Formats: sequence, C-alpha cells, structure tokens
Amino acid sequence: MSKEDIGITVSKNKDFSEWYTQVVLKAKLADYAPVKGLIVLRPDGYSIWESLRSTFDRKFVSNGIRNGFLPILIPESLLGKEKKHFAGFNPEVFWVTHSGENEVGDRLALRPTSETLAYTLYSKWIQSWRDLPLKINFWNTALRAEIKGTKPFLRTSEFLWQEGHTVHASQEEAEKEVMKILEIYKNTVEEELGIPVTIGKKSEKEKFVGAVYTTTMESIMPDGKALQMGTSHFLGQNFSKPFEVKFADIDNVEHFAWQTSWGVSWRLIGAMIMTHGDDQGLVLPPKVAPIQVVIVPIYKNDEGKDKILSKVEEIRKNLELKEIRVHIDDRSELSPGYKFNDWELKGVPIRIEVGPKDIEKQSIVIAKRYNREKSSLSFTEIGKISTILDEIQESMLKTAREQAKANTKNITEYTEFKSKIEEGGFFCAPWCGKLECEEKIKEETGADIRVIPFGSENTNKKCMYCHEQSISIPIFAKGY
Amino acid sequence: MSKEDIGITVSKNKDFSEWYTQVVLKAKLADYAPVKGLIVLRPDGYSIWESLRSTFDRKFVSNGIRNGFLPILIPESLLGKEKKHFAGFNPEVFWVTHSGENEVGDRLALRPTSETLAYTLYSKWIQSWRDLPLKINFWNTALRAEIKGTKPFLRTSEFLWQEGHTVHASQEEAEKEVMKILEIYKNTVEEELGIPVTIGKKSEKEKFVGAVYTTTMESIMPDGKALQMGTSHFLGQNFSKPFEVKFADIDNVEHFAWQTSWGVSWRLIGAMIMTHGDDQGLVLPPKVAPIQVVIVPIYKNDEGKDKILSKVEEIRKNLELKEIRVHIDDRSELSPGYKFNDWELKGVPIRIEVGPKDIEKQSIVIAKRYNREKSSLSFTEIGKISTILDEIQESMLKTAREQAKANTKNITEYTEFKSKIEEGGFFCAPWCGKLECEEKIKEETGADIRVIPFGSENTNKKCMYCHEQSISIPIFAKGY
Repeated sequence: MSKEDIGITVSKNKDFSEWYTQVVLKAKLADYAPVKGLIVLRPDGYSIWESLRSTFDRKFVSNGIRNGFLPILIPESLLGKEKKHFAGFNPEVFWVTHSGENEVGDRLALRPTSETLAYTLYSKWIQSWRDLPLKINFWNTALRAEIKGTKPFLRTSEFLWQEGHTVHASQEEAEKEVMKILEIYKNTVEEELGIPVTIGKKSEKEKFVGAVYTTTMESIMPDGKALQMGTSHFLGQNFSKPFEVKFADIDNVEHFAWQTSWGVSWRLIGAMIMTHGDDQGLVLPPKVAPIQVVIVPIYKNDEGKDKILSKVEEIRKNLELKEIRVHIDDRSELSPGYKFNDWELKGVPIRIEVGPKDIEKQSIVIAKRYNREKSSLSFTEIGKISTILDEIQESMLKTAREQAKANTKNITEYTEFKSKIEEGGFFCAPWCGKLECEEKIKEETGADIRVIPFGSENTNKKCMYCHEQSISIPIFAKGY
Repeated sequence: MSKEDIGITVSKNKDFSEWYTQVVLKAKLADYAPVKGLIVLRPDGYSIWESLRSTFDRKFVSNGIRNGFLPILIPESLLGKEKKHFAGFNPEVFWVTHSGENEVGDRLALRPTSETLAYTLYSKWIQSWRDLPLKINFWNTALRAEIKGTKPFLRTSEFLWQEGHTVHASQEEAEKEVMKILEIYKNTVEEELGIPVTIGKKSEKEKFVGAVYTTTMESIMPDGKALQMGTSHFLGQNFSKPFEVKFADIDNVEHFAWQTSWGVSWRLIGAMIMTHGDDQGLVLPPKVAPIQVVIVPIYKNDEGKDKILSKVEEIRKNLELKEIRVHIDDRSELSPGYKFNDWELKGVPIRIEVGPKDIEKQSIVIAKRYNREKSSLSFTEIGKISTILDEIQESMLKTAREQAKANTKNITEYTEFKSKIEEGGFFCAPWCGKLECEEKIKEETGADIRVIPFGSENTNKKCMYCHEQSISIPIFAKGY
C-alpha cells in the first residue's frame, strides 16, 4: 500500500464530511458493519469509549448512582402506556416479529430508549420513602433506524450510550439531580475530550417529548454545525403517573415520585474527532488516548541499535512507572517516516524519536501531535513528559475554546442572521419565546434553537424575528 | 412486610429450584422483565458482573487481548455463509422484519453469537502477517429465544456474556490461545467465585458445531446437576475458509488463518448463587461482594449512641483505607434483628456489630456470613479484617471443593450408573469414544458427556456401555 492510500487524502477545510469519514476509517477507530446504518468499533475506538465510561462511572458512583442491566426487547403493549413520549420514536423502531419459525404475539421493539421498561420495574421496586432516591444508570445501546446517510459515531442505527433514570421524593431533589448530571457531563467533556460546551435549556419545541423540560449541552463543530452532546431531562411526574411510580411517605401518605433521565452517547467521540483532527488525521486528547506516547527507535543497518533499544526500553519503563500508556514501534522493514505518518494518523499525543545522534547528545526528540512542534529533551528530563501531556490536554481545550468563540456571533437583526447562517456557527439572538417565530426561523433558514444558555433569560431586547419583547437569547444554529 | 415475606421461605435441600428463584429475587440481584424469558439486573446483581468483567479484562489485557464493539443485528444473507454452524441456532433466533412501518429486505437476526459478523470484518482487516495475531473480545449480550421455563442467570433469552475471537498465523499458536483462555477462565472462577471447575474437552457430539474441538469447564451444582461454566473453541480453519480470513506471510504466500472463539456468561453468577447460598439466602465470596463488610450500630433509646456512632465511623474509615467496601446500616426504626436478617439474605460476607457492651469491652462482634460463626475482635485488631476476608474467600472454595468431591463418583458398571444417576452428581466412567454408546446412554438415562477431563485419555479400561476398550474417562451427568 502506498503512503497515499494510507494517509488522509482530503483537507479538513475543503471536504469536511469526507475528511471525517477517512479519519474514522483510516485511524482504525471504526468500520462499517454489513447492515446499512451500523458500525463496528475497533479496539482503538472502543478504548476511547471505555475511558469515557470509566470517568463517568467514577463520577456517577460518587453521586450515589449505581449501574444495572435492562434487556433490549420491549413489548409493544407496554409502549402504549406513554404514547405521547413514544410516538416520536415510531418511524425509527426496529420490530421483532418472529423467534425461530414462530410469530411472537405482542411485537417486540428493540429499545430506542428505556423509560417505559425501567419505570415498569421501578413501580414494583419502589414502595416507601426508604427506597428513594433510586438512581440507576444503564450502559447499553439504543436502536433507532436511520434512513439518512450513515456517519460513524454521529448517525448510526445502533449506538453505544448510557441512560440514567432516577426517582426522587421531591421535585426539588429531582431538579437538583438534573443539574448535577449536566455538570458532570460538562466537566467530563471539557476535561477529558477538550471540547467546550454551552449548557442551558432546550425550547419547548426541541425538548424530549416526555420531559417537563430538557437541559442540554451543545457544541459548535469546526464546519459550523451544532452538535447536541448530551441531555439531562426533568420528567416531573409525566411518567410516574401512567407507570404508577408511587411511594408511601414517612407519614404513610402515598405520592407520585419525581423523575429524571439523562444520556450521552458515542457521539462524543465524533465530536472529539471533528474538533481536534487535522489534515494528517486524528488528534487525541492525552487523557483518552489508548497510547499516549509512542517511541520510535531510529537506526540504519543496525548501527548503534543495541544502545538505542536499551535506552528506548529504559524510557518505556520510566514512563510506565508514571502510569503513562507507552508503545514502542520496533517494526522492522518500515522506515521512520512511514512510522511517523502512521502514528500521526492515529493521533498519538507524543512521539519520541531516539537515534544515534540523540544518544550522543544524551537527549531525545519529542514531537507533539496537536501542534506538530518538535523539541528536544535531555535524558534527565524524561520525567517532564507527564507535565507535557497535561499541558497538551489544556492547550487542546484552549484552542477549541478559541475556535468555538470565533464561530459564535451575537446577532440582533434577522436580515444579518439570514445572510450569515449559511456560513455556519452559533448565533446568539434574542427571541420572544413564541413557537411561531421559532418555526418561521427554522423554515426560512434551516436553523434551530440549539440551547437557551443559562443566564440568557429575562433579557430586555427585541425578538430578532417579530421584534416583540424577548425572553431569552438562545443559540440558533444548523445542527447535525 | 413481615419477616416471613422478606426472608427465604423454602429450604435449599427441599426445593432447590424455588429456593434459587427466591434468593435471586429477594436478595435483589435480578427481576423479571415484562417479556417472557428476559430479566433485568438490579445494582447488586450487575455489580457482581462488573467485578467479574474487570478481573477478566485485566487478565485479557495482559494476554494481549483488546475490547471492541459489534452491532446486534446480523443480516440473514450473511448467516448463510456458514450454514452448518448457524443451523443449530435457527429455532432460537429473534428476527427483525420491520423498521418503523417498512419491511426490511434482508431479515435481521439478533445475534445469537457473532462469529459470522466478526469474521466478515476480520477478513477485511487482516492482510498480512503484520496484522496477526488479532485478538479482540466483545462484552455484549447474545439472544437465544428460550422456550422452556425462565431461570435468572441460567436460562434467559438475552444474556450478558463476553465473546472473544482471535486469529493466528499458525495452528500451534491458536491452540495455545485456546488453552490460555481456558486457564484464565478456570483461575478466575475458582479464585473470584470460589467454584471448583473441571476442565477438558467436549465430545464430538457436544462440541460447538463450528469448532474443530471445544474445551470446556464444568461444575457440579449442589442439586447434582452439571453446569457448563465456559467454553474455549479451537476453530481451525473452519471459518477462515468460507469467510476468507487470509494473510500474506513474510514470504508473501497467502494462507488461511487459524482461529479461536471463547465465552463466559452471567451463568457464572447463577453458579455462585447455587454453590454458596443457604437457607438464609445469598452467600457472597468477598472478592465479588458489592458490600464486603456491613456495620450495624446497636443502641436503645439513644443510649451511648454518640460513642457508638463515632466508633462505627472510625472503623469505616479504617477499613476503607484498606480498600474494603463497607456500609453502615444506620436506618432508624428498624431493629438489629431485622437488619441482621436483611444483610444475611443479601449475602454480605462480614457483619460487624457495635453496641454499648462492645464499647465497654473495647471490642466488636464479627459475624461471618458463610459459616454464620460469631467472634469478637478487639479495637486494636480491626486491621485483621482484610485477612479474615481472604480466609473466607479460601474457605468457601475449600468447602465447595469438598461438596463437589462428594458429588463425584467413579463408575465402571452401567447397572450401577443407571441406579445412581437419578441421585445426580458427576460420574467418571470409561467410554469407548463411539457416538453410538454416548447416544444410548443419553437416551436411557438422560445423562450427557459433560467433559472429557485432560489427563483422562488413553485409559486401559472397558467402556461402561459396550465393554470395548475405552479411550477416555469422561464425566457423565445430567445438565442444566
């Protein structure tokens, strides 16, 4: 295979969509499955998901949340209980009609989400105030048939996600939980993936149909499109009433409980690829990189090979003691140049080069993936690599924040909005709160209200569409 | 709820099946889902699975195995490629025929196992010897419609498991992998779950239909029935040929690869419940217990309450520093007796009681769940609890070994076999190796060859059925 076949052949700026697909496939994160709309994760892709899962799990546990397991099949009859919520999923549901040769009586849905199933069980499990709060998270997949073009991590018919479902004795406690989760989401995405997010509420039109309100975190991608990164819903008693999730309080009076649900999916990995990747391929934030440091020993005709390899081994041990994930690329018959390209394509945060001259100078060459800077580090300074990884992590978030800022504009005039929306970006524009204006804007420009940022409410401006008094300054954008 | 409703109401010896179901449900490990054949895991049940998963993952990683993700839907057309292997699953397959209102062209199977899907991809991913070995494990669920009665963890239509699929350049390397995995399985089940297993090969009749041979680990349960605990298959080139899993060797000659597949499921949790549980409920091996030590503070009318609670808090901190999972049961309005029963039902390995008299005597009471022994420990000896947990873990395996040994009999005469098989147990009996005898024995007694233990081959005895020269001494038993 020639270098051209292996590397990324289009520029991120020129053909973003093709660039994205090439990065996913060529960095070996994922591949297409034989069924349209479905993908497979290869070890490097799944490893990023495992890293996120373990960070979320740690934070969920310290918030009193535990994990459980729900089956994938939900009987059609159960779905009827909360028709309004489920109706939105109907066109996307995969239906099981047969087991072996036999027709199943009540058709079985592959879960598009598990509210109905979880709350049927919660209603059995919860009897008294002693059973509350009940906070369970499920790491599973959801299935929603996607008719439009498949995009790994962004638009697939089955996707990995977590869905949390909590039950509380009071409205106040449930609403606090909604916000607590949204904060966990925001911190994790910013600190682990280096992607800045804007948090706030969805409009009535855009909220999860079963929710009283939906909080969301949204990000703007380099191509100017918005991506929903995760949602945390306050369900109020919308489900506890039809599903009879009730509890006897200390005074023995029965109440309907207050509920929340929330989820993030592997879409976060898609956001990470889009935010940080470049024309050479993937760029991984150190915290989630399966390999954080790759060491490439360089020698010709075995000259100085032993010295180089023993130094490389020493560095590996040194770094592993600091819990850095290291890999030595000692593949024979491949040139250093080939290896450099290969690891750049795969986005490994730091490459270390050790050749005969480096041994002479008692130093190594360090190449940072994210800005492609090279520098040298003396043998005595190897310990600094931990700090360098931390700095890379911070710099990546900082750069992404600057990108996002440059892609965010304040707008007051609808004519200006219309002329600029095609370029893409986040547009902060005052809104009267009326569905009519929201729908007209969508119809005329294709842009939705992505999020009404916290703190943007109660503004004293004019709706950009109808010029009536505004109630908030939502972010409008075209979305994925 | 009265104590009777909460506790186990049947004896393990009297009605094993009902006892088992009560333990699973009342210890809150699992519950039935609204679809026949499906169960839900509650946090205590899922936590045991997570603990096993993390132990297996650690061992897999150090054996060079990485995790990936496969979708749940497999097109019917793909299944045709290896008809022989798939035919066995046919009556159990759930079929998706519709997405939304639309009929899907090629019916989609919910995976009963992923060989066909994985190897379709492997065939793309593997080009040269550099891509080998390829060793990927998938933590997912498999679906096989169970027509017979549902039994949580033992017989369910969807089950959590891992399926590993490895590809090698040589037969020798693949066969080594098969054994390496079987060893990991055996060690983990014995060390973590305290269940002794017998390892060996399946007969031709009982092997996985796609395999050249199947290695297995089997255990005998207290009711005398055998349980298959995990299998590791040598697939030879049975799949690499139809799926074209080929590689160019160093000399550039193309070869079909050698493959293995292997899996364990949440059935292991069922085995743990059956092996260790008693009439009071669940008994958890310390290593997998979500809570290892529960502390019950005991006081009446707040007498000495402050001193007791501060001591209890001190013990908790002390134990948590040693990474012991501790819980303080400070629920008000519940008697110590109620709490003792509750934690015994849930199988927590150690209960610590701290009351006014204990404070006086500068000691605590320790109750071990597995043998229900009580002893006292002075305040200065709290550090010994780590060791006590280790001792419990070892004793539980030791006891289980004795149980298994008592349930294993050597048999040479078929008449004796027939008279004893109804009592249950493992029967080691010489066999000529012929399918005909194996089938006759099954037909006449209901017993299968569960495993041909390693080292039992080449025996110089007479087949218990036909009296011809035996080739091995398999274990015969009735199974789950």
